[in-house]
Amino acid sequence: MHNIKAFAFDAYGTIFDVFSVTALCEQLFPGRGNALSQLWRAKQLQYSLLRSLMGRHRDFWKLTEDGLVYAAKSLELDVTPDKRKRLLEAYLSLAVFPDVKPGLVALKNKGLHLAILSNGEPKMLEAAVKNGGLSAFLDRILSVEEVAIYKPSPRVYNLGPERMKVSHAELGFVSSNSWDINGAASAGLTTFWVRRGQGEPPEELGFTADRIVETITDLAAMV
Amino acid sequence: MHNIKAFAFDAYGTIFDVFSVTALCEQLFPGRGNALSQLWRAKQLQYSLLRSLMGRHRDFWKLTEDGLVYAAKSLELDVTPDKRKRLLEAYLSLAVFPDVKPGLVALKNKGLHLAILSNGEPKMLEAAVKNGGLSAFLDRILSVEEVAIYKPSPRVYNLGPERMKVSHAELGFVSSNSWDINGAASAGLTTFWVRRGQGEPPEELGFTADRIVETITDLAAMV
Repeated sequence: MHNIKAFAFDAYGTIFDVFSVTALCEQLFPGRGNALSQLWRAKQLQYSLLRSLMGRHRDFWKLTEDGLVYAAKSLELDVTPDKRKRLLEAYLSLAVFPDVKPGLVALKNKGLHLAILSNGEPKMLEAAVKNGGLSAFLDRILSVEEVAIYKPSPRVYNLGPERMKVSHAELGFVSSNSWDINGAASAGLTTFWVRRGQGEPPEELGFTADRIVETITDLAAMV
Repeated sequence: MHNIKAFAFDAYGTIFDVFSVTALCEQLFPGRGNALSQLWRAKQLQYSLLRSLMGRHRDFWKLTEDGLVYAAKSLELDVTPDKRKRLLEAYLSLAVFPDVKPGLVALKNKGLHLAILSNGEPKMLEAAVKNGGLSAFLDRILSVEEVAIYKPSPRVYNLGPERMKVSHAELGFVSSNSWDINGAASAGLTTFWVRRGQGEPPEELGFTADRIVETITDLAAMV
């Protein structure tokens, strides 16, 4: 791993805890918060894949709204315009996992370039980074909007080496999602799968992570 | 709808009841059959999308096995080689929904050309059609293997008009999956969404079905 010159991090689920919206879901729909946030997240991701294959790209802010609309209808919840707005805006100030800031600081102290490489729409990523207090530790925010297709298309992962001026193998890609790790590995990046104690098996997609780490604070010792 | 000259049917979930494997799952893993068949099916579909976007096509028979392997690991079920073989082979003799045969007969009697247009690997489709007693009513079996990418890529839906020698609008595409209807509509086919009493809302993917029908027997009266 001594050849790693930069890191690119997945955002949602890796830097930011998307289920931090569950509390607001529960507050607005008592007893249904968990069901709503789970289905909302599943649809948001599924729509990113389906639209990419259809060749009908739509940015992640709008997909997040589409996923919420579907989830509300499916669960028969009355998501009024005001509730919809509050739920969507929760994506602009998601909780940051506690290992993120110390992990990024340790990597910055080693002189590594750090970026986010995410499905997110640029403005929603910028807001989440700023509100999470991470602006000082990230050199770049790379969004799929530059290529108008979602992960795990190789066109997304190729943005990292292109923009960060390193080779594919020199870029460490960090994600807590096994499918994302498979996509990055398939594109030739060096991959780090963050587990945070979660027990799900790796996805059966043909690739394995180069390293499995428990937390983002584990990364600095590896490079 | 008077311009419809041919119909293409989705296979799994529309012609064949994929959850007919649930009984075998339950027999092999008492109390866990439903969880296994649900997760297995979800992974099979998710892997078709992920691999298509990765540009790493793998046929649906192998994806079906990959989905089963993941589901077994995730649910901590000991799927021995013998059990794996029995579960996979259940895909070769899936139950046919009861409205399918009378619906196809009525359309054949009107002189329409009928095909399957499916994610399935050709041999597994042929076996299911034969074991389901449907060979006499279907003129063609079109598989994504011809284009090596999965639905909802337009390359898959375009196979229908190309091979059946009709225009996109003249081909009626029939599916019980709303995302599949969206993909076909996006590619320009005339779409018929089969509900069979299911209450899920349509997917928020930008398209609507040209017609919603309860059963496949409803189609003949429309053309």
